[in-house]
Amino acid sequence: MIPDSINGQNVIPFQGVGKFQPSGRKAMPRISTCSDFPSDGNKLVKSLKDALIKSGIKDGMIISTHHHFRDGDLIAVKIFEIIRKLGCKDMVWFPSASFPCHRPLIELLKDGTVHRIEGSMNGPLGRFCSEGKMKGVGILRSHGGRYQAVQDGEVEIDIAVIAAPTADPFGNANGLTGASACGSLGFALADSQFADKVIVVTDNLVPFPCLPWEIQGNYVDFVVEEEKIGIPEKIVSGTTQMTKSPDRLHIAELTAKFCDESGLIGDGFSFQTGAGGTSLVISTFFRDIMRKKGIKARFARAGSNKYLVEMLEEGLVEYILDGQTFDLEGVRSIRENLNHANTSPFTSYNYHSKGNFAGMVDIVILGATEVDVNFNGNVVTHSDGYLLHGIGGWQNCLFGKTVILPLPLFRDRIPVIVDEVTTLCGPGELIDVIVTERGIAINPLRKDLLEKVKGSDLPIKSIHELKDEVEKICGKPKKPEFKDKIVAAVKWVDGTVIDVVRQIIPK
Amino acid sequence: MIPDSINGQNVIPFQGVGKFQPSGRKAMPRISTCSDFPSDGNKLVKSLKDALIKSGIKDGMIISTHHHFRDGDLIAVKIFEIIRKLGCKDMVWFPSASFPCHRPLIELLKDGTVHRIEGSMNGPLGRFCSEGKMKGVGILRSHGGRYQAVQDGEVEIDIAVIAAPTADPFGNANGLTGASACGSLGFALADSQFADKVIVVTDNLVPFPCLPWEIQGNYVDFVVEEEKIGIPEKIVSGTTQMTKSPDRLHIAELTAKFCDESGLIGDGFSFQTGAGGTSLVISTFFRDIMRKKGIKARFARAGSNKYLVEMLEEGLVEYILDGQTFDLEGVRSIRENLNHANTSPFTSYNYHSKGNFAGMVDIVILGATEVDVNFNGNVVTHSDGYLLHGIGGWQNCLFGKTVILPLPLFRDRIPVIVDEVTTLCGPGELIDVIVTERGIAINPLRKDLLEKVKGSDLPIKSIHELKDEVEKICGKPKKPEFKDKIVAAVKWVDGTVIDVVRQIIPK
Repeated sequence: MIPDSINGQNVIPFQGVGKFQPSGRKAMPRISTCSDFPSDGNKLVKSLKDALIKSGIKDGMIISTHHHFRDGDLIAVKIFEIIRKLGCKDMVWFPSASFPCHRPLIELLKDGTVHRIEGSMNGPLGRFCSEGKMKGVGILRSHGGRYQAVQDGEVEIDIAVIAAPTADPFGNANGLTGASACGSLGFALADSQFADKVIVVTDNLVPFPCLPWEIQGNYVDFVVEEEKIGIPEKIVSGTTQMTKSPDRLHIAELTAKFCDESGLIGDGFSFQTGAGGTSLVISTFFRDIMRKKGIKARFARAGSNKYLVEMLEEGLVEYILDGQTFDLEGVRSIRENLNHANTSPFTSYNYHSKGNFAGMVDIVILGATEVDVNFNGNVVTHSDGYLLHGIGGWQNCLFGKTVILPLPLFRDRIPVIVDEVTTLCGPGELIDVIVTERGIAINPLRKDLLEKVKGSDLPIKSIHELKDEVEKICGKPKKPEFKDKIVAAVKWVDGTVIDVVRQIIPK
Repeated sequence: MIPDSINGQNVIPFQGVGKFQPSGRKAMPRISTCSDFPSDGNKLVKSLKDALIKSGIKDGMIISTHHHFRDGDLIAVKIFEIIRKLGCKDMVWFPSASFPCHRPLIELLKDGTVHRIEGSMNGPLGRFCSEGKMKGVGILRSHGGRYQAVQDGEVEIDIAVIAAPTADPFGNANGLTGASACGSLGFALADSQFADKVIVVTDNLVPFPCLPWEIQGNYVDFVVEEEKIGIPEKIVSGTTQMTKSPDRLHIAELTAKFCDESGLIGDGFSFQTGAGGTSLVISTFFRDIMRKKGIKARFARAGSNKYLVEMLEEGLVEYILDGQTFDLEGVRSIRENLNHANTSPFTSYNYHSKGNFAGMVDIVILGATEVDVNFNGNVVTHSDGYLLHGIGGWQNCLFGKTVILPLPLFRDRIPVIVDEVTTLCGPGELIDVIVTERGIAINPLRKDLLEKVKGSDLPIKSIHELKDEVEKICGKPKKPEFKDKIVAAVKWVDGTVIDVVRQIIPK
């Protein structure tokens, strides 16, 4: 199933959780010298184009960007439009994630400016890739896997462009203030540390020192001022929305009840719920349980939002460890509150590290597009076979102590629980509990949890029972059909390839 | 003068300021994997001995420690006593600095446990080295040079032991709280990032997460709890003392007056004065000038102390960028005030970087044991030829925009201004002004400064005039006599060897 090489690079197939043993040493960025840099620390150049030229832009280079501006990013497309005008071809775009706003890159993929995307391909870019139209093979990595790939030298970034809501002329930067404030800049950390050339682009230039220097100017080659680097309303929303769907509310309640009754919620526990509509409701249920029991959580991993910030400020949560802020309250809190700390894929998720934070979280709430009867999970393709999502931190978070997937049994009348996932993203041994509107399935490997809920009134069922129920409603789903051509590879957290995505045969 | 090799390693002789062009790539720490570390993040082992054994301690290894506990360090000697008991020989001690409290290492240097020290040798260890009694050749590096050497792979640390005032079982650590609070832990940064094995030792273990994680647990192999890692009174003093010597007060006043009249002090300027008795007085003169002019400094580089903290809190200084805190007020401020930021030798001083902070400082006040008529400076040996001091950040700070050395003309009736420095630590082209109790000498290279003070009532003299004056008082100093044997090498900020220290012939 897994080819020997992809995009001309050798491939190591997935060997099981924790089985692949890396050898060798980390990547080796070139040694710089201060004598090549302005002694007064002023690295400003006049334009992004100028910075790209000074960085030695040429055919085939790997260009990285980060996704902290989400669907409000104004920089990534701009970079590749400059590159097209400069006449460079076959570039590799290495974003930490892509969004619908990056749709214009389709034209640049078509005209040969861009060879492939190594990073999530959400929405239109994923559809383009699924249809076999991308020249190279897309590589999907988790947030931690992206750090690992850069650190291990699998991906040698030639030029990293770091869009920064605040920066100084030395290149110190953060995401806390300015019109494009996005909170953390953690997803750009690896890029700053390992890329050959690093360009910081900002629309809020401040005199040295820009503090805190989440991105350290000592790694930065050039600084560019742009009028506008992101669309604020699309970067962080003023408000985060809870789900109003009765089914989702029921799933959220059931999830919280399960966590409570199985003893997972106790004084000093930790959790990561995410910032989706259902997740937010789960958070508020957790809040109510903590209040009632008079206990507090030691920390919450985030995706922060106003509900989590309220819990921090109420003293229900001692620390928020935050990879990205999802609303304005999150940005305010991470700027002001020392107990609201920014994290990076290095601290949280890098699997080729001396441990990371992911394994320390007691309760992890995640989503999925599909789960199969062996508890294997899929987050990148839909049941129709189209590649429409990135992995995000999903694979990394699977290492949490108890991983729970609250899922509707079906979406658009297509079952979510299936015989075999279309694309394997996470091995079933790491997924502990599936909570649906019609019952809860516990992974048979988690005998301890099965024991704990014995005698409770929770609707515990086997995953096969859940699958049968959904098939009674929706019928047996028809499998999508694929050509042989591999359009994308899904990496596991250790750099091995766990599955591939093939070109869809449209219905 | 400079040998081809030292301690079996090739030597590149000093090639002039900014002349040596490094090639190659940074050091390459081994790739780790989370599967080799406890999934719950708990890296506690039962003792320092245990941690050293698990780290694979063996003959000839390079063991590093930091000096944030200054003369109150209880860990470095303990490590080598354990190593002696384990029977290991020929170790290299790689501290960020050493102090009189490390005197017991002399016995371990004598019995072959320790082969040499690469790091400052203040006081008794320096005397021991000067007398030719150390088996290997000592290597002296600046704080920035130490980071550079580790980063560039010149020094491959086998085991770093990081004594931390606060840490969690994952290895996240800081110096802000606990009985041994020392402020920053920046001097241990390179050690954590590049050492093969990293051990954190703490006397204040807190549950995960220890925030802020100045040392990141993701780099840490083992965590050890010890009852006491430092002697608080010797780590930071409750009060910092200003000089009371009339001569020093006069020099301080003259220095401040020079800075003012030459136009160096203006709105948004920056300075680094240090924390010695004379420096503190200079700081308070700066404060008075700023108050009078109604201006403020953008930042002060520190060595923080209560006077600087007062300026920060009064709004005279916008930011303190702090490498080490020298008193309790400094520790409090860096813990509480977001505008009081900790720095590291990487951000501040690493010369093999894409710029560093050193060059951005407008006024830098430094000391020296000797200066010669070519403005060359010495900080490691005394005029009697004994190696008694480390370089600290001195060489790195020479890259400041205007470097001023307030110095007494003589100490113990030995001239400070000489024909040629005993040991060359800093090239004269980087030293701009010498302020003494009998006049101010400006480096002829600084025509701009000479122009600015024209017509002022400042006692401007040539360096030769100052030398003549001191020789009239003290007589021409007798040069110390040396054997051929090289006992220590002085590295420049770029890893080249700028001078060597030879074995003293005692008088």
